[in-house]
Amino acid sequence: MSAWTAFQDRMGAINDVLNAVSVLQWDQRTMMPAAGAATRGKQIATLVGVARDMLLADETRRLVDDAESAAALEAEDSPARRAIAQTRAAIAFHARIPAALQMRRAELKSVANAAWIQARAGSDFAAFVPHLREVVALTRAYADAIGYEHHPYDALLSIYEPGETVATLQALFGTLRAGIAPLLAAVRAAPEPRADFLEREFPKAHQADFALALARMVGFDTARGRLDETVHPFEVSFTREDVRITTRYNPDFLNASLFGTLHEAGHGIYEQGVDPAHTRTPLATDLVGYYAVGGTSFGMHESQSRLYENHLGRSSAFWRLNFEALRAAFPGRFDDVDAGSFYRAVNRVRPGFIRIEADELTYDMHIMLRVDIESALLDGSLDVAGLPDAWNAAIRRDLGLEVPDDRRGVLQDVHWSNCMVGSFCTYTIGNVIAAQLMDTIRRTRPEIPAALDTGDYAPLKSYLNAAIHRHGRRFTRDELLVRTTGRRLDPAPYLAYLRAKVADVYGVAGAA
Amino acid sequence: MSAWTAFQDRMGAINDVLNAVSVLQWDQRTMMPAAGAATRGKQIATLVGVARDMLLADETRRLVDDAESAAALEAEDSPARRAIAQTRAAIAFHARIPAALQMRRAELKSVANAAWIQARAGSDFAAFVPHLREVVALTRAYADAIGYEHHPYDALLSIYEPGETVATLQALFGTLRAGIAPLLAAVRAAPEPRADFLEREFPKAHQADFALALARMVGFDTARGRLDETVHPFEVSFTREDVRITTRYNPDFLNASLFGTLHEAGHGIYEQGVDPAHTRTPLATDLVGYYAVGGTSFGMHESQSRLYENHLGRSSAFWRLNFEALRAAFPGRFDDVDAGSFYRAVNRVRPGFIRIEADELTYDMHIMLRVDIESALLDGSLDVAGLPDAWNAAIRRDLGLEVPDDRRGVLQDVHWSNCMVGSFCTYTIGNVIAAQLMDTIRRTRPEIPAALDTGDYAPLKSYLNAAIHRHGRRFTRDELLVRTTGRRLDPAPYLAYLRAKVADVYGVAGAA
Repeated sequence: MSAWTAFQDRMGAINDVLNAVSVLQWDQRTMMPAAGAATRGKQIATLVGVARDMLLADETRRLVDDAESAAALEAEDSPARRAIAQTRAAIAFHARIPAALQMRRAELKSVANAAWIQARAGSDFAAFVPHLREVVALTRAYADAIGYEHHPYDALLSIYEPGETVATLQALFGTLRAGIAPLLAAVRAAPEPRADFLEREFPKAHQADFALALARMVGFDTARGRLDETVHPFEVSFTREDVRITTRYNPDFLNASLFGTLHEAGHGIYEQGVDPAHTRTPLATDLVGYYAVGGTSFGMHESQSRLYENHLGRSSAFWRLNFEALRAAFPGRFDDVDAGSFYRAVNRVRPGFIRIEADELTYDMHIMLRVDIESALLDGSLDVAGLPDAWNAAIRRDLGLEVPDDRRGVLQDVHWSNCMVGSFCTYTIGNVIAAQLMDTIRRTRPEIPAALDTGDYAPLKSYLNAAIHRHGRRFTRDELLVRTTGRRLDPAPYLAYLRAKVADVYGVAGAA
Repeated sequence: MSAWTAFQDRMGAINDVLNAVSVLQWDQRTMMPAAGAATRGKQIATLVGVARDMLLADETRRLVDDAESAAALEAEDSPARRAIAQTRAAIAFHARIPAALQMRRAELKSVANAAWIQARAGSDFAAFVPHLREVVALTRAYADAIGYEHHPYDALLSIYEPGETVATLQALFGTLRAGIAPLLAAVRAAPEPRADFLEREFPKAHQADFALALARMVGFDTARGRLDETVHPFEVSFTREDVRITTRYNPDFLNASLFGTLHEAGHGIYEQGVDPAHTRTPLATDLVGYYAVGGTSFGMHESQSRLYENHLGRSSAFWRLNFEALRAAFPGRFDDVDAGSFYRAVNRVRPGFIRIEADELTYDMHIMLRVDIESALLDGSLDVAGLPDAWNAAIRRDLGLEVPDDRRGVLQDVHWSNCMVGSFCTYTIGNVIAAQLMDTIRRTRPEIPAALDTGDYAPLKSYLNAAIHRHGRRFTRDELLVRTTGRRLDPAPYLAYLRAKVADVYGVAGAA
């Protein structure tokens, strides 16, 4: 057996184990009876441990060395050299984390998460403080173990969105805040569009049928995937040949299933588009996060979901073309509504307390305040005790709202209780990338938006497949952006998109 | 950490991995898009390999030794000593199988199975002959590696139904044939009951609702399990806290969902009843078969499914109590039928070619001919080329039918193409045990059948839980039988049950 084949077999086996973890997690969130949680948790922990042992085994290091020699003559950015480099980097990453810290983090997750669920239910921040203190302390130790140049938060960002740092995010956020604030002010001065009809009674079975039709229409391949119901929607793939998306059906609010489905379909289309040659290789495996995924970064993944959710799903063309089908799917619900009103309703801007319910214009405000707070907690400039005040002040400043209780404030997100610090920025980066890609498409491939205007979603998917999806994790996010758009992350197209949307929906000429 | 805890942790991890395999297999058969089959196969193969490596690691042998010293003062049949003994036996078993043979068997399964699917579709036995020759040769080598005293088939029986041998089965089958043949002759001379109404149109959604209600009614706990649809129904557990059963809904034949569901519910009730103390231990893991299961043998498992399917589901009391609910679940389908007619219809005896469609009286004939053929193939007294003739002659002798083609004859079962030789007898043993248990219950706990006659299925489940289920794999099948019924496997109650059934349904007094 060649050195390369032996390396591939080893990495394929690790990918198999991590895909098995994903199957167990998908089942847990869609099918499993609640009573199975305890033993399922043990099964997942055991498999992650197996994957870790396989990656860090001496044998694997030897296989990496041998494969590197075998691939020495290939280009630096060849799939083989990139797979080897990423494996080597992941081994080095994990070798830096002390076993005791790893174990303590794993234990803390379940304790802190249980405490958070209780604290949130009672809107009792004080009860969560000791746990959050430990999360912060442990996350700081984790960042120190990973290592960083300027700021401990940079170490965490390197996991979720390699290339970003506190400094790059502050520059990005400054630009976004300066661009979004005047738009928000203009919208607040304008009359709100009608949206009452989104809160009528929508039978779940009809929502399920329509959601599946939507996902298929925009390009999610149900011969290589499924759509199921869950509480907190997500996408997960078990190789490109089996990609699962989920959504939820709120019987008296339609948005979650419509836009949640398009969002997850975008994630799913990314995974389904990864080059089959990358299957079971490090180019379809996040070896740092122990996660079998084909997308190259959280931000790039989110760009595909946001593109399908917002640039398609919240466009006027989409509802001009699909509103009649929606009306037919929900008889009697939209008799007093036309496509234009529906388009404006699903783009209504209304500042609120809850991130996951936020509109396009205010969503990033929620993200930016979290990133600011996370980095301040990490470097010690903000103490856990001061968190609610900092949070509420930011909501007041950015959205003009008074947070009524911590349940609708600092206790709303699950992330911290899961020791997940550093991932929030990827949502906003996804928004920025989606607009950057669509801007390039409009300028260089006008036939693609023209096709969208006729309801033909295939050319867009083909373009994204070729430009982004097929590469899997071979190229970094910024490499893909430079190859595709000619430049690295650039917020200008995103702000232009938001301005145009506000101008169109609210008729606020000054904003555009 | 104590020696016992270290042993438990190791065995718990192996159980975790094997439960993960079961989740992947359940998903494959109920949820997975077909395109996922290739990578799913690799995931399962990798995990089985991981479990094998963990079991056969030097470290595990050391942990077994240490645990054995720690448990030396406990009783021989204590859970600890039994867990240790079973682990040691499984290690010895696997150590006897050469790695090359193991690998060749794994490879042959997929090749032979694909060839069988094609051969069966075309009813082309000749095309399957070379593959079956290799299956027989490899299975013989496998039996030789396992080791046996009298007959190579005994080695295979030791995997599926420890304690049985060719000699014990021949004695059992002689008794069964002698008892069943006159019943069959009597039935053939009697007029057939009506059964046309079982082949009406039954909407799948109504079948699904009724099947779930049935499973719950007899005691399957859906807080710790699910019922889903599949092509070939099965039961699988991921510990006792999460037990999945499956059924199928034939839109123009009701039996599959009714009796298939009760059958799988019986399997599920067994797994749900295993003592929680056995969770993640060898007493809930088949370490020889690399399968996370709580039941002690295939035959004992089948006894629980047959008990629920036949002794409950095909009893007159069951339909006296539940026929009105069935009629209400399928409006208009049973207007011309009463409970008595329905009971007789689901007990109609009609010799046929297909094992899985057979009635209670002819089912064992199908099994016994397969066991005879398998053991003859193994010892070389029957050549693969002579298989169809031997098969067709047995069907002629036992059922009086002429097999029209090999699709409905020797090619009908999947087992041989999967290198699964030696398991067929467990179906008949399940029938025998079910009757033996019910006989003891009727004689020693008359309040249980009295409760069944009023539709109270809880006392039966409690009894079976205490007598059989809770022990998991701690005791052998015969140990459980002796503890519960006072004797080892005994076909007399089964023959008495069949005689009584024929007498009741066909009014053949001489048979009873």
